[in-house]
Amino acid sequence: MLRTHTCGELNMAHAGQNVILTGWVQRSRDLGGMTFVDLRDRYGITQLVFNMETHAALCDQARKLGREFVILVEGKVSERSNKNAKMATGDIEITVEKLDILNESKTPPFTIEDNTDGGDELRMKYRYLDLRRNAVKRNMELRHRLAFQTRNYMDSLNFIEVETPVLIKSTPEGARDYVVPSRVNPGEFYALPQSPQTFKQLLMVAGFDRYFQIVKCFRDEDLRADRQPEFTQIDCEMSFVTQEDIFDTFEGLVVHLFKTVKNVDVVKLPRMTWADAMKYYGSDKPDTRFGMQFVELTDIVKGKEFKVFDDAELVVGINAGGCAEYTRKQLDELTDFVKKPQVGAGGLIYLRYAADGTLKSSVDKFYSPEELKKWAEAFDAKPGDLILVLAGKANKTRKALNDLRLEMGSRLGLRNPETFSPLWVYDFPLLEWDEDSQRFYAMHHPFTSPKPEDIALLDTDPGAVRANAYDMVINGVEVGGGSIRIHNKPLQHKMLQLLGFSEEDAQAQFGFLMNAFEFGAPPHGGIAFGFDRLCSLFGGSESIRDYIAFPKNNAARDVMIDSPSRISDDQLKELSLKVSI
Amino acid sequence: MLRTHTCGELNMAHAGQNVILTGWVQRSRDLGGMTFVDLRDRYGITQLVFNMETHAALCDQARKLGREFVILVEGKVSERSNKNAKMATGDIEITVEKLDILNESKTPPFTIEDNTDGGDELRMKYRYLDLRRNAVKRNMELRHRLAFQTRNYMDSLNFIEVETPVLIKSTPEGARDYVVPSRVNPGEFYALPQSPQTFKQLLMVAGFDRYFQIVKCFRDEDLRADRQPEFTQIDCEMSFVTQEDIFDTFEGLVVHLFKTVKNVDVVKLPRMTWADAMKYYGSDKPDTRFGMQFVELTDIVKGKEFKVFDDAELVVGINAGGCAEYTRKQLDELTDFVKKPQVGAGGLIYLRYAADGTLKSSVDKFYSPEELKKWAEAFDAKPGDLILVLAGKANKTRKALNDLRLEMGSRLGLRNPETFSPLWVYDFPLLEWDEDSQRFYAMHHPFTSPKPEDIALLDTDPGAVRANAYDMVINGVEVGGGSIRIHNKPLQHKMLQLLGFSEEDAQAQFGFLMNAFEFGAPPHGGIAFGFDRLCSLFGGSESIRDYIAFPKNNAARDVMIDSPSRISDDQLKELSLKVSI
Repeated sequence: MLRTHTCGELNMAHAGQNVILTGWVQRSRDLGGMTFVDLRDRYGITQLVFNMETHAALCDQARKLGREFVILVEGKVSERSNKNAKMATGDIEITVEKLDILNESKTPPFTIEDNTDGGDELRMKYRYLDLRRNAVKRNMELRHRLAFQTRNYMDSLNFIEVETPVLIKSTPEGARDYVVPSRVNPGEFYALPQSPQTFKQLLMVAGFDRYFQIVKCFRDEDLRADRQPEFTQIDCEMSFVTQEDIFDTFEGLVVHLFKTVKNVDVVKLPRMTWADAMKYYGSDKPDTRFGMQFVELTDIVKGKEFKVFDDAELVVGINAGGCAEYTRKQLDELTDFVKKPQVGAGGLIYLRYAADGTLKSSVDKFYSPEELKKWAEAFDAKPGDLILVLAGKANKTRKALNDLRLEMGSRLGLRNPETFSPLWVYDFPLLEWDEDSQRFYAMHHPFTSPKPEDIALLDTDPGAVRANAYDMVINGVEVGGGSIRIHNKPLQHKMLQLLGFSEEDAQAQFGFLMNAFEFGAPPHGGIAFGFDRLCSLFGGSESIRDYIAFPKNNAARDVMIDSPSRISDDQLKELSLKVSI
Repeated sequence: MLRTHTCGELNMAHAGQNVILTGWVQRSRDLGGMTFVDLRDRYGITQLVFNMETHAALCDQARKLGREFVILVEGKVSERSNKNAKMATGDIEITVEKLDILNESKTPPFTIEDNTDGGDELRMKYRYLDLRRNAVKRNMELRHRLAFQTRNYMDSLNFIEVETPVLIKSTPEGARDYVVPSRVNPGEFYALPQSPQTFKQLLMVAGFDRYFQIVKCFRDEDLRADRQPEFTQIDCEMSFVTQEDIFDTFEGLVVHLFKTVKNVDVVKLPRMTWADAMKYYGSDKPDTRFGMQFVELTDIVKGKEFKVFDDAELVVGINAGGCAEYTRKQLDELTDFVKKPQVGAGGLIYLRYAADGTLKSSVDKFYSPEELKKWAEAFDAKPGDLILVLAGKANKTRKALNDLRLEMGSRLGLRNPETFSPLWVYDFPLLEWDEDSQRFYAMHHPFTSPKPEDIALLDTDPGAVRANAYDMVINGVEVGGGSIRIHNKPLQHKMLQLLGFSEEDAQAQFGFLMNAFEFGAPPHGGIAFGFDRLCSLFGGSESIRDYIAFPKNNAARDVMIDSPSRISDDQLKELSLKVSI
């Protein structure tokens, strides 16, 4: 190595040693007789000192160093007179005897600091400079650590990582595929995988009983803020298992990751049925860092001439503990919040349980104090609490109250990103009815098995069938989902029929999987974790983009390399394609 | 788990225990009173016994089990009367008390045995059954182990694994790209990476000083037997390094892999310049498991009226030690071998050094015994040796003699796949002249730096410039290659000029990299290993396909899933494309 040490490791134990360091000029200060330069590399920052009295020429050279110049210095480790306890290397500095400029730098378009002056677009265009910033660099290190520890854990349990192909076959079910024209098979296309689902099931048929893979997947969607055209999954599958085995194995994984990467102790994961999650949180991914569970009031509030409640399918609320002193203005803000189109409630009813024990609501003219007392009892409220109630169509109201609950959690500081509350949500419905197309869709995917006790309902009431499907949810984020799969051909066949596949389509798209099921498919199931999402959760951020080295923007463009781009006519011709805009 | 144990772990220590096993029926033998079934899973085979006397119904059921049925059995571990020392579980058998058929199986299209009766095509179509065979399964386990230990080693040296994007930008230099049409940017395409080369260099600019990635790469080539459209690399890059640091770090990697995966001790890797490799082996990837180095005779054989030698640019041979007794027939075979079009020599001259010390050659009428003595001395030959000589144009003759040397090595059993002889070949030429297009191509790639002492030659004699480029070669196979990169813009610019890039093309294709070099690029270099090839080498096989779970055939087709395939007109329309055959 050109260097003897990194910029992050020197301390008083090295005092007096001659060392060679390499790195980037973070900043320099010219104090007349002395010039100080902060030298940065991946590991830290070390202060360099150039002395005008003893090394005038060298000091002159140092004064001309610009930000982000790449230099090599040789010198002696000395104790600082002015120590900096905040820096790992803050006790020492290097008295420089020799300076080589390895490369110059133009002035970077934004500052390479934790709080940079660069906007999003500029930082994406110069992502290689953005990655020099501490915060972004640490995200990449966290991502590496999580992948590495995932592999350690999986290997220790005899899982083997198998690479499944990237050039596969287009299947219209689910999101849109990215396709790849084949030159040697004109008019034909590969597709990039949305997940290795069918391949991992084939690996179970092949007898590999414990498979995993950290793998890139692709989805040609109209992008939202937190979606990327290419994303990474921790993809896992096991044979000869029950749902219980999946829970054990993969809560073991997150316990291992929290311990080894964050030094956080997580205990056994609680479990919640999908029905309970919807009933008590209005969401299939409840944020359980705080309580504030839903309480339904429908039965006790009807028939008091309050039309809003009388007309409502559901009246449901939460108890915002300790918020009885909320001002008019704060309550108006909450009302505005629930009325936003994204939330969609008609209005907000509140009930204050004052510290002196009196009850005061926004519907006092319809409900007597005795009646309001019943509300308070339903919520198990105590003096000082504030009850917030929504009413309307059941599903829509639950969704709105979920938004309000999360908003209250945020306002009350109950959603600390360094607190982690993982759980399993299970017993999802098998099918989801789509009003637009008047057909059922698989809630998870077409390979998910129904619960054995619900199979009879497939013919009579398909929407009521529960699946052997589960999600792992942490802090209100779905980090992983999976199911016990169907492993015999007749049931798989029936499922595809229910989903509206014609015989031909089913054979064309999944024929190889159904054929495989005829040659001794074992019972199997698995799970896939969204790795980008998991990284952002561990990093305490909302944005997965911060955890991807070279992300694309919301128009699916890489602005750094300017891609996608046109290709040559020769390339198009070789591929037997014409662009037709 | 549905099972209590695997089929590979039970032995006498478990005798008397009640166990539950799951797996596939490998074979069954009906001996009247007893029926024996071999049950197989990923971990091994265990013998099951069904007793007609005590469990008649069960035994009847067992007799109906077909090959590859998936079953669950419960029973007692018993000592075998007839032990099988070749099997890990050969001391015991399971006396079955309960049998569940978890899934039936049609008769598989080929036998699931080490020596199967299935042809290549059939096994590819039913790859999920082929993967059940021991040999193929072990290859996947080897692959997992190699990837896992690679990551362990790299992590221990502070390398971080960074995922680079798969949807990138097409660059005409090098092989053909696979491209991906963008729906949201009509008429524009992404390309799949042939390697993460530019991205890993950007990571160095970003300060990540030690990067690696085990990553899928793509090349749209007309396939040869050992090529796949998608393949896997161990891609690595370091900053602030010399070539020496790269050698140290990555011979450390292969030493670690040989030790942990094969329990083979490899010592420090020998090094050979490219010039020496060509001179002594006629190949830039010499198989150094055996000697038989080239000896040039040009100077001592000319002027004796033997036209073949007099007209030759090069006369060069090898000493096949101990082969003096080769028969006429064997020598004719070798002559036929070198005359094959793929080898391309005009003929073969030999010199026998008989055990009694006499010298006998195929050109005795031109050369006296004294002159032949000089040949023998040049080869340091001893009685019993056979010298084989080729003559002609230098490059062509070296290539042909390389083929002959490898053939002799094989004939003499000197190329044992369980012997490993790794080495570094270095100081490759920077450029390669292409007669067809009358231009230089980068021998490695356009980012490879010339040796500083040869930079002056770039203007006067570009073909003579040596590069800071190196290959790791094991047993005649190039398993990895890399270089110290160019890290400043003017030199990179000059290099692209030499390679015939116009200003516009250079800017359009590599502009983002050259721009990045203006913001403080550190000196850096790296290497990439062909992971599929490395796996096959460790496994002792010539075919990389055996080490890929779901490979494509020579027409770039996946015959199992029948891909590539047509896509719908709607899909084409959304992508603004028309097929034009």
